[in-house]
Amino acid sequence: MQGTVGELGEFGLISQLTARLTPTPAVELGPGDDAAVVKAPDGRVVATTDVLIEGRHFRRDWSTAYDVGRKSAAQNLADVAAMGAVPTALLLGLVVPADLPTTWATELMDGLRDECQVAGAAVVGGDVVRGDTITLAITALGDLQGRAPVTRSGAQVGDVVAVTGWLGWSAAGLSVLARGFRSPRAFVEAHRRPEPPYHAGPAASELGATAMVDVSDGLVADLGHVAAASGVDIDLRAADFDVPAQMADIGQAVGVDPLVWVLSGGEDHAIAATFPAGAQLPARWRVVGKVADKARPGTRGRVTVDGAPWNRTAGWDHFAD
Amino acid sequence: MQGTVGELGEFGLISQLTARLTPTPAVELGPGDDAAVVKAPDGRVVATTDVLIEGRHFRRDWSTAYDVGRKSAAQNLADVAAMGAVPTALLLGLVVPADLPTTWATELMDGLRDECQVAGAAVVGGDVVRGDTITLAITALGDLQGRAPVTRSGAQVGDVVAVTGWLGWSAAGLSVLARGFRSPRAFVEAHRRPEPPYHAGPAASELGATAMVDVSDGLVADLGHVAAASGVDIDLRAADFDVPAQMADIGQAVGVDPLVWVLSGGEDHAIAATFPAGAQLPARWRVVGKVADKARPGTRGRVTVDGAPWNRTAGWDHFAD
Repeated sequence: MQGTVGELGEFGLISQLTARLTPTPAVELGPGDDAAVVKAPDGRVVATTDVLIEGRHFRRDWSTAYDVGRKSAAQNLADVAAMGAVPTALLLGLVVPADLPTTWATELMDGLRDECQVAGAAVVGGDVVRGDTITLAITALGDLQGRAPVTRSGAQVGDVVAVTGWLGWSAAGLSVLARGFRSPRAFVEAHRRPEPPYHAGPAASELGATAMVDVSDGLVADLGHVAAASGVDIDLRAADFDVPAQMADIGQAVGVDPLVWVLSGGEDHAIAATFPAGAQLPARWRVVGKVADKARPGTRGRVTVDGAPWNRTAGWDHFAD
Repeated sequence: MQGTVGELGEFGLISQLTARLTPTPAVELGPGDDAAVVKAPDGRVVATTDVLIEGRHFRRDWSTAYDVGRKSAAQNLADVAAMGAVPTALLLGLVVPADLPTTWATELMDGLRDECQVAGAAVVGGDVVRGDTITLAITALGDLQGRAPVTRSGAQVGDVVAVTGWLGWSAAGLSVLARGFRSPRAFVEAHRRPEPPYHAGPAASELGATAMVDVSDGLVADLGHVAAASGVDIDLRAADFDVPAQMADIGQAVGVDPLVWVLSGGEDHAIAATFPAGAQLPARWRVVGKVADKARPGTRGRVTVDGAPWNRTAGWDHFAD
């Protein structure tokens, strides 16, 4: 276990990593062959891939390897949930520098495994190669359990817009970290280890959600994808959002309107969905706006806040510096 | 289309890339949502991930973007076939430097798309992020069509070992390229664009294959995985391999025994399988050895050539320099 991944070699590292995994009943064949075999009882499989790079998506001085694992898995498993599916499996493509401590890689795997467990999934396979920059390429699979996928394109005029999960906590935590602080701990933890409401995705599908999206880039930005795909204009009501007192305090301390974190902050992996106006939503869903109108001819569909454009700190573009 | 991916931005690039894709009937929902939805009629899905990095797995001066796409897709789709499954879908995680010409990325996608088409699959989703080194993380999915997966662990004493596809061509082509030449063209092309016998994987399963593996690291190395997983010793017969005259000529020119390319060269993505001794194999399969014995207690199972250890230019270890 001591030493670096370079000393261990490709097969040694794979062996260390796979030894930490625990299968689920959905795993018919786990790591160690040309490919894994995962149950897909629905007869369809939901699949999504994300890439995370050190320095751009995570920092080793701000997050432990374990937390990077939790967060990377969460980000992909949340995408599966946001289709209304139950996550089943995760595959990891991992680029590691030769001088990376082996423990960093094994703790990363522990984080991936544990987050999978929260979501009901398992790590079933992957690949490790050597390179200059730690890079994680994660693919998550899921099962629709007989339901239709809830896409971004089904929002209807008159629908309500509702959210569940955390909003703005990760961005507030990042603001704290970026200023060299380590507290308030709840927000720093939220940045390091998001808690997507996995169960809420399939539940929203059962409740009749017409469109759904994982909030990864920021609520306004991600609802913008729903608006564009559905050809509708969405209006949010600022007063309907819950800005926790402690978040307001941090905002005051660092000179940021906390509503910017709530509406534009990414990486909490809340779920946003549209529902028919009469839908009975459980208490954990908060109605924060409505599908106001069809997009005007020639426009992409837009998201406004209290009727006005919202362009304060736009959603995260991984191509931006 | 002109310019760099940095100028185009994340969403612009995704839009350019997805516009080039063509779906298949297996694609229920393609790129553009939180996740794709792919048919899995068998009720199980085969899934595999590989990562390729510029400078380690491909060179832009040796291969076009299109060829990198073909080869990267082939490598993953072949893993699916080697389980006895039919490839259905591919996801791409792509890391690109900001100064990469957009055309490089779109030609890469054309290559991925076209290789998927050869295998009967489609690109269904992905992610692009900016980073210093071009990196491709590819996940391929497949359907078993009711068959049991053919793993590495089912080889039985008395089975024959057979191969189909190309062996040593890519390694011979690489030798040519590494010496600054561009011909013989057939071998250089084989290195740039392997042709895995996709159909042979499911066919081998139907023919009763007891174990199967994609030859990506070299035949002896990959059969070594079968030997280890099955707990058997495998013996190959050098005289049973076909060394084409032109390959022998290249070997003489560059001072390499071409049998080394055939037995230790990777990246052709031939398929190797074990079959019960009486199996009737079609003409394109070549019997090249047998499962000679159970692995001796305390050993991992080994692969010999004409009864002797084979350790000339071992299989490719991506951690080696």
